[in-house]
Amino acid sequence: MSVLYRLLKARQLVKNGHSFYVSSVPKVTEEHRLARREQIVAAARVCMNAEGFHKTTMADVIRESQLSAGAVYGYFKSKEEIVAAIAEDALSTVDELFENLLASDEPLTPLAALEATVDQVVRVAGAPAGDVTRIAVQAWAEALRNEEIREIAKGKYCKLRGHFLVIARRAQADGTLDPDVDPQHVAQVMFSMIPGFVLQRLLIGDVTPATYKAGLRALLRS
Amino acid sequence: MSVLYRLLKARQLVKNGHSFYVSSVPKVTEEHRLARREQIVAAARVCMNAEGFHKTTMADVIRESQLSAGAVYGYFKSKEEIVAAIAEDALSTVDELFENLLASDEPLTPLAALEATVDQVVRVAGAPAGDVTRIAVQAWAEALRNEEIREIAKGKYCKLRGHFLVIARRAQADGTLDPDVDPQHVAQVMFSMIPGFVLQRLLIGDVTPATYKAGLRALLRS
Repeated sequence: MSVLYRLLKARQLVKNGHSFYVSSVPKVTEEHRLARREQIVAAARVCMNAEGFHKTTMADVIRESQLSAGAVYGYFKSKEEIVAAIAEDALSTVDELFENLLASDEPLTPLAALEATVDQVVRVAGAPAGDVTRIAVQAWAEALRNEEIREIAKGKYCKLRGHFLVIARRAQADGTLDPDVDPQHVAQVMFSMIPGFVLQRLLIGDVTPATYKAGLRALLRS
Repeated sequence: MSVLYRLLKARQLVKNGHSFYVSSVPKVTEEHRLARREQIVAAARVCMNAEGFHKTTMADVIRESQLSAGAVYGYFKSKEEIVAAIAEDALSTVDELFENLLASDEPLTPLAALEATVDQVVRVAGAPAGDVTRIAVQAWAEALRNEEIREIAKGKYCKLRGHFLVIARRAQADGTLDPDVDPQHVAQVMFSMIPGFVLQRLLIGDVTPATYKAGLRALLRS
């Protein structure tokens, strides 16, 4: 696979008129590469939303992406790798959100962090390539049957929960949360609000950021 | 199907030596019927936990139950009906829990109701026929692709959320929750704690009732 990958990459570079050598790849090629990767991930999201996570094959993704099999395999060796990329893309926007939240000097409450996260989930779900939260719910089920998906989900969700852990510690330092509680336990409960919101939004359909944030404000200490 | 069902039922009653007429079925037959139903539901849980929700067929359930196809179809016409029964059995224990909670004259907080529910989830998950929460997660995914499963999930979860709604109203009456908030919105957030707990328990594995309840106590108003 590695030799094939390098050959394909070299061919692509030659075809694009850029240098054959990876060490001197100009910036435009890296942009091109990112755009192609995005094209494949978007195609996978379309397939998974239309056909279901389980039924979607690499062949479906290749067809939808309108790239060659070699091009797609040059970026992703398996459906599992694409799933990891979909999760990474969706959650990287949440990473940025938490960076911004933590950059503020204002006292930061778990409530404020959760309100911002719920808004972000709905923004991410509304992306043109289809609702990524529908793929997430299917990935949860798949994770129970497929060890590789489980490891991906576990890694991504531990990272997301890690953000809530930082918020809990910050709230303890700011005096908005009991300093004697294990912040890991608080992070577990904060994390729950996100899949709980996603699930009700998809299965019941009457939950919006406005209703949910009103519930959060009533229920959580502030 | 209805005629076949009645024929099978009649045959079973004759074989058991009881009256042919449904209107005069003695109590032992109703018990026998409930035991058979339980046998089928338990077989389905075993299959779904071993093979996955999606892959499990009626043929698998029939084989695992060690009953005839006619007997099984006499109770459940489809996998969807069995799923509804699994959900009903699991959630009926939660119905009882809420009845008991609401029967008390003590002031009732959302926190206390959630703590009791988390304990109950773990009790139900530990049943001998296999962890029903693993089936629930798979049913969430299936609900996005199968309208019938979606309606079952929606109905069951609206009922569970209805319990939290009653708790929220009671807490407003008791003065432990802001009376100006829409209790439906509070119920949405309370409901979230359950799938959020289940998911972390299955995918990450480090969440226990003890850690989660500690997080709830720190985060929720009391």
